[in-house]
Order: sequence, then structure tokens, then C-alpha cells
Amino acid sequence: MTDTARIWTAALIVIGDEILSGRTQDKNIAQIATWLGVQGIRLREVRVVADDMDAIAEAVNTLRARNDYLFTTGGIGPTHDDITVDAIAAAVGVPVIVHPQARAILERYYETRGGLTDARLRMARVPEGADLIVNRMSGAPGIKFGNIYIMAGVPSITAGMLDGLTGTLEGGLPLLSTTVGCWVAESEIAELLAQTERAYDGVQIGSYPFFREGRTGANFVIRSTDQAQLDACAAALSDALAAMGREPFAGGI
Amino acid sequence: MTDTARIWTAALIVIGDEILSGRTQDKNIAQIATWLGVQGIRLREVRVVADDMDAIAEAVNTLRARNDYLFTTGGIGPTHDDITVDAIAAAVGVPVIVHPQARAILERYYETRGGLTDARLRMARVPEGADLIVNRMSGAPGIKFGNIYIMAGVPSITAGMLDGLTGTLEGGLPLLSTTVGCWVAESEIAELLAQTERAYDGVQIGSYPFFREGRTGANFVIRSTDQAQLDACAAALSDALAAMGREPFAGGI
Repeated sequence: MTDTARIWTAALIVIGDEILSGRTQDKNIAQIATWLGVQGIRLREVRVVADDMDAIAEAVNTLRARNDYLFTTGGIGPTHDDITVDAIAAAVGVPVIVHPQARAILERYYETRGGLTDARLRMARVPEGADLIVNRMSGAPGIKFGNIYIMAGVPSITAGMLDGLTGTLEGGLPLLSTTVGCWVAESEIAELLAQTERAYDGVQIGSYPFFREGRTGANFVIRSTDQAQLDACAAALSDALAAMGREPFAGGI
Repeated sequence: MTDTARIWTAALIVIGDEILSGRTQDKNIAQIATWLGVQGIRLREVRVVADDMDAIAEAVNTLRARNDYLFTTGGIGPTHDDITVDAIAAAVGVPVIVHPQARAILERYYETRGGLTDARLRMARVPEGADLIVNRMSGAPGIKFGNIYIMAGVPSITAGMLDGLTGTLEGGLPLLSTTVGCWVAESEIAELLAQTERAYDGVQIGSYPFFREGRTGANFVIRSTDQAQLDACAAALSDALAAMGREPFAGGI
């Protein structure tokens, strides 16, 4: 059942000192944003917070209340700096327990790899009442608690968790997009863009300038949940650019 | 004058639908985080918000109050979706004016490029009372208002604005780091990491696992403002790994 009128929103909390120090380039924002778009869910806000109980809990409680879904990435490994499960459990006011199915997955995995130590067992801990998110790619499950989806920091592992969630979250109409590129300074056609956007209900135009090979250009990304509006808006913009003697490139440059 | 005991903090707001849609991979978080680290300032939190007046204003007012510095990226171009200056002016309660020096820079730049149109003049708008951040690389200035530093969305332009700011912000001791890599599952040495961290005051150890060529390994990033503590901790960790028969790699793998 899809409610076409309602917009479904999600927030994402990226947890980790390694992102805030600049050591690691985040890949999960773009990965999760793209995946959510396909599910018909808009990523409305992202926060990057440190490996800090209070910082995580504050972000969790603010964002889970005002979005349909909340995703987190990072901090669910076996070491002392992996505090995401504890912080989320504290935020929602439940104890942390060892999930029997997660324990069984770990026992199986470590059977031939030195056995299930206390440190490894940390990875089976979940907020009480949570379910696991099956990961058929790497085996490492994610955790679902209410509207909170707890994912790994390593992007390839998160990809497997998203795969396990695909098609299970209720969303609205996917936000469609099309791109028109042009070798034009965006400042030359700022008014045209604003007029064109106003002329098509529910359509948004984003303008993304670039400088390549000594030339100025821009890609205009048109977004709507309505394919017909999207196509009509893209055609109108392309015609207007052509009328100015500026060749439009369907799909962008 | 550097106060060595005090920790200086910054927050960053990344403004733009293109990041939240997954279309554009953000590069500014890592760039600004790294630059801040060199200035002796910790990036404490990041928010990614949509091109939306209220969302920007809420983030600005929350984060500027609880950090020494607030940076923003994105939304300062000439088109209708560039609303950062308006949103920040509204958040701090001042009108938007055209900055005379910014106008002069634009007039000079567009003298041979079709002249300064209304759309282009938008890029000279600042919150009243703001100063410009000189950009000797691309010419496009950033904007400084109180403790708010307003930067471009295009990472190469932001790089020039950061260059203009280098050495002008008061900070504390830079956070130093060193990395020890090892072909070991982090779950095998979780307790060792926690013990080692506890043994060295003011030192933090982050554990970053990876999977390469079918093998499991991890990099352990040790951070401190004190070089001697850092070196002693790295040596202790390396010795302990070697004693387990696991070769440590200085600098990481």
C-alpha cells in the first residue's frame, strides 16, 4: 500500500570520530540517500556525530521523533569505541541484551576462526526488543528497533544490510529526476531557471555549476514525483536554452 | 596566543539537496575537517540540511551557540536555490545587504564576461555586518559573520576560501595522530586496545577494520595532543601485537 500524497522522510546519523577528523571520507550518506530515493523515501537531514554517548543520544531522540525512519551508520563493531548500541538503548530507555539469533550467527561464523570471545559477543548486543536485519551478502546483520535502522560503518557491509531491507519499508512515490546540461554560466540564466521552476507545479530545479577545460557550464537537475511534469519542464528548459543559442544536453554534461 | 588547555570546537553545516538526494558525493566534510585539525580546532558535529530556510536557520542557531566556530558550505551561487545568505541573515536577525567590496570584485570579474547582471549581483549579498574572506586562488570570496564562516559548495572554491583563512583562527594544540596497522581481526585484540587506551592519559584509539585480498586487518589510529604520549602508546601497542606474534605496521596498512 503506497500513499501517493504523503511524503515519507528519513534522517541519517553518521557516527564516528574518523569522519569528523577527516581521516575517512564518508561514503554512506550518498549510498543510503540513493537507496532511500528508490524506496520512495526522502533523506531530509544528516548529522555526523562523535563516538560519544550523549551526542548520539541527542541526535537519535531528535531525529527519530520528526522522521518516519532513522538510520545510523558506524560504531557497531567489537571494540571499546563501538558504543552505538549502548547509546541508542540509553536514548530510547531500554536495556542492552544479547540477541539469540545474532549470537547464533556469530557462533557459526567464528567456529572455524578461534571461537566466540567476549569481544566478539559484543557484536550480538542489541537494544531489548530489537529485530535483526538479515544480510545475505556478508552475513553481518543490521539492527532494527522501532523506526531506527542501525547499520555498519564499513560501506560494503551497510550495502548488504540495505539489500536485506529493500522493499520492506513503506514509502511514497519515488522522487524522479532528469538532468539538462549546458555550457552556460548559471548566472546568465538564473531568472530563466526560477521562472521555469515556478511554471511547473511540484517541480524543483537544482543548478550545479562546474568548470572544465577552462569553460563554464552547469547541470540543471529537475526533480518531481510526476514523470509528465518532469518531462514537460525539461523540454521547456531545453527549448529556452536552445532559443538563446545555447545547446542543451539531455542527461547532463 | 594559544591556550593549550582549552579545546576549540567547530561545527559544519553542509547545505544542499544534491547531497541529500545522493546525486553528489560530499567532499567538503573531509576537506574542512582536515583543515580544522591543522588549525588546532576539532570538528565536533556536522549537519547536512536541505535548501530550506527553516532547516538552515535551525541548524545555524543551534550550532553557532555551542561551538567556537561554525562553517557552512553550499548555496551561495546566483540561482534561485541559493538561499544560504538569506537563511543565515534571518537566523541571526540582520538584513541582507550588497557588500561593496564583493560588488567591486564581481564587476571586475564580469567586465569581460557580459557585465554584472542582477543574478550575478546576488553573489555580492551578505548578512549586514559581514566581512569577506579573501580567496587568492579563484577570486570568489567567502563570508565571515561573527563566528560563522560561509563557504562555497564546489570543493575547489572552498579550498581557496580555507587558504584565505589559514592562520587567522585561534585554536588549541593540534590533535596529533599516528596509525599502527596489523593483519588481525579487531575482535581478537579488543581488550588489548581498551587496556592500552586506559593506560595513556588523553590518548584515544580508534579501530578501523578492513577486508582486503581475502584477509582481515585493522588500522588503529591513536590520537593525542601530546607527541610523547602518542609515541609511547603506539610503541606499547606495537610491542603487544608483536608479543602475540602479530606484526605491527607503523603508519598503517
